[in-house]
Amino acid sequence: MNVLVINCGSSSLKFQLIDSVSEKVLAKGLCERIGIDGSKIEYEPYNGEEQEKEVSMPTHNEAIKIVIDSLLNKETGVIKDLSEVGAVGHRVVHGGEYFSKSTIVTDEVIKKIEECNDLAPLHNPANIIGIKACINAMPDTPNVVVFDTAFHQTMPPKAYLYPIPYEYYKKYKIRRYGFHGTSHSYVSKKVAQIMDTPYDKLKTIVCHLGNGASICAVENGKSIDTSMGLTPLAGVAMGTRSGDIDPSIVEVISEKENMNVKEVLNVLNKKSGVLGLSEVSSDFRDITKAIEEGNEVAKNALEVFANTVVRFVGAYVAEMNGVDAIAFTAGVGENNQAVRKMVCEQLGYLGVSLDEKANEKRREEIMISTPDSKVKVFVIPTNEELAIARETLELLS
Amino acid sequence: MNVLVINCGSSSLKFQLIDSVSEKVLAKGLCERIGIDGSKIEYEPYNGEEQEKEVSMPTHNEAIKIVIDSLLNKETGVIKDLSEVGAVGHRVVHGGEYFSKSTIVTDEVIKKIEECNDLAPLHNPANIIGIKACINAMPDTPNVVVFDTAFHQTMPPKAYLYPIPYEYYKKYKIRRYGFHGTSHSYVSKKVAQIMDTPYDKLKTIVCHLGNGASICAVENGKSIDTSMGLTPLAGVAMGTRSGDIDPSIVEVISEKENMNVKEVLNVLNKKSGVLGLSEVSSDFRDITKAIEEGNEVAKNALEVFANTVVRFVGAYVAEMNGVDAIAFTAGVGENNQAVRKMVCEQLGYLGVSLDEKANEKRREEIMISTPDSKVKVFVIPTNEELAIARETLELLS
Repeated sequence: MNVLVINCGSSSLKFQLIDSVSEKVLAKGLCERIGIDGSKIEYEPYNGEEQEKEVSMPTHNEAIKIVIDSLLNKETGVIKDLSEVGAVGHRVVHGGEYFSKSTIVTDEVIKKIEECNDLAPLHNPANIIGIKACINAMPDTPNVVVFDTAFHQTMPPKAYLYPIPYEYYKKYKIRRYGFHGTSHSYVSKKVAQIMDTPYDKLKTIVCHLGNGASICAVENGKSIDTSMGLTPLAGVAMGTRSGDIDPSIVEVISEKENMNVKEVLNVLNKKSGVLGLSEVSSDFRDITKAIEEGNEVAKNALEVFANTVVRFVGAYVAEMNGVDAIAFTAGVGENNQAVRKMVCEQLGYLGVSLDEKANEKRREEIMISTPDSKVKVFVIPTNEELAIARETLELLS
Repeated sequence: MNVLVINCGSSSLKFQLIDSVSEKVLAKGLCERIGIDGSKIEYEPYNGEEQEKEVSMPTHNEAIKIVIDSLLNKETGVIKDLSEVGAVGHRVVHGGEYFSKSTIVTDEVIKKIEECNDLAPLHNPANIIGIKACINAMPDTPNVVVFDTAFHQTMPPKAYLYPIPYEYYKKYKIRRYGFHGTSHSYVSKKVAQIMDTPYDKLKTIVCHLGNGASICAVENGKSIDTSMGLTPLAGVAMGTRSGDIDPSIVEVISEKENMNVKEVLNVLNKKSGVLGLSEVSSDFRDITKAIEEGNEVAKNALEVFANTVVRFVGAYVAEMNGVDAIAFTAGVGENNQAVRKMVCEQLGYLGVSLDEKANEKRREEIMISTPDSKVKVFVIPTNEELAIARETLELLS
């Protein structure tokens, strides 16, 4: 069965058509600037070159239609008939406390996702628009929703409750949810596979380090804690996000810079992290270059970033009372050997021993600990689209 | 030499007169409601009973005079002449980046403490008032200032810099400072003494768990990281403080509860932590009682508290790449065996083995790990006043 994987933003739509048997990506692409002037589609079939085309997309409905047209196109398409799309798998950011796993879309499911809009006001409404557009365009094709939060619904109260007035949890559902669940689940399963150990008998820490970054403790197949929180701002330092800081800093910045709380949060989301501290870039390649050129502040920024990762890894080892494997994934995790080294160097007490040569590799599934390392360390390229396609297939078969 | 130890709040003044040779407390007490109606002094000489007396104290100047009168009192006093007070040691909350150790008070020192007022607007001005009152009352007696922040000035940039715009550090000195330094220093030195190991060859984690709580990683005699931050709100959950939370929660509470940022921070400082989550009390004895009566929410609150401690202990083990000793101190740390057990139970991977019988003890200097425990665990009652007296003596001899 071919699964169309859809990831909708407020003005964008990413897609991949995946043959869920061979797990081959038949085509992929991106619609940008939906509802804005100058909207365009990028489309790349597995057997051809990437194309870019400006085309009017006032809403996500037109975007979905153009995606379908591209897939069916006589010259560059990859299917002959829409019936070859067996299902659509949607990434949905927030499932609140309603969804602890992926599910087939029904009216009731859409209603519940809408009830979570408040928890992800930028993302969930866009996700729902994408689902509805697919239902319009392909009324007979089943839709499945895969939530960023679902994997973390196994966290115990001691991990998900904040030490704030309990009524805020009861009234507003303010708690830790965590994100990147699809990636943490995919990577931790892969670790079990590589180690040839049952998934439910393994303690793994996944470091998903991209422009957004989160760490997850997976104990016996279940997420027991993760660094992102109510929102994706929390946890480790990121490209532009601060991660956890003394909450008083919000008040201090507000007073000193004469900003309201929304403006301060905007700074913490978009002008902080490695970008804010280095004053160079949110891109770790630029940071590396600046460090090579002797920029001390950039060096500090990278060390602060790595240190926040070290803190969470150490914390999660304690929460699981041990660890069998640590995996790095996503852009920085897959490519930045310096960060991986800075983290692993702190973990000698666990019996982590880094294979420096293996650690030089990029974007490759590889063990980067030495054969005698007590705790195994891996780089595992994440693949959220494939994970969504798999979940979709599983639910429908 | 007798050292008068002074700890001034905005409307209070705590004092102890300590014989710094025998380290005996000759007298101690507290002036309350200074500048408010109904001000009173509590005074207790070592050889007598505690007395309480209402007395007018419009300013800290009168309070210091009444303290001196009490110490000199023919019946209940402990000294005959003011010359028997060799020095005054003052607790000062915030030394900013100026002070990495205790120092003898000069006009220049007072000016620098005043420059840190902005970082501790409730505490530093009161501390300065106390210093000036002592200079007025005893112009020939040297004054020494001991800072809550000084011990942590050894932290490296990767621990003290926040991943926020670097200009906020440059312009406003927003960084991690940490507090409870006198206690962390005192307890970690005591650990080295008990273990008969050089202080500069030991990795210790001190868990100062009182109504305010902070964790500190002391590596080779230096604080290399601590859980409190720019302010004492940060870090682990506390009696009424939230500790670290997703900074977005400030914005969400502000919107949902229609509060300004100051009001939200007030909630996070005074209505959160174990009190807010349990809806019972900030006092751990009440929490324990509620749990015994079957209160599940109180149980959650205690588990959340302990879990935040576990996270920081685990994080600091990683930051030091190992640990030799863990010490619990302050009200909860010295008295609450359940919390100590919940923390130690997570640390089997380090070779921590708890001696359950020893752990039943309260408020006693004792090793609570078994003799074969790889990492030693202690309860060490803190004594900030004694530590201040020692620092004072050291500086003046």
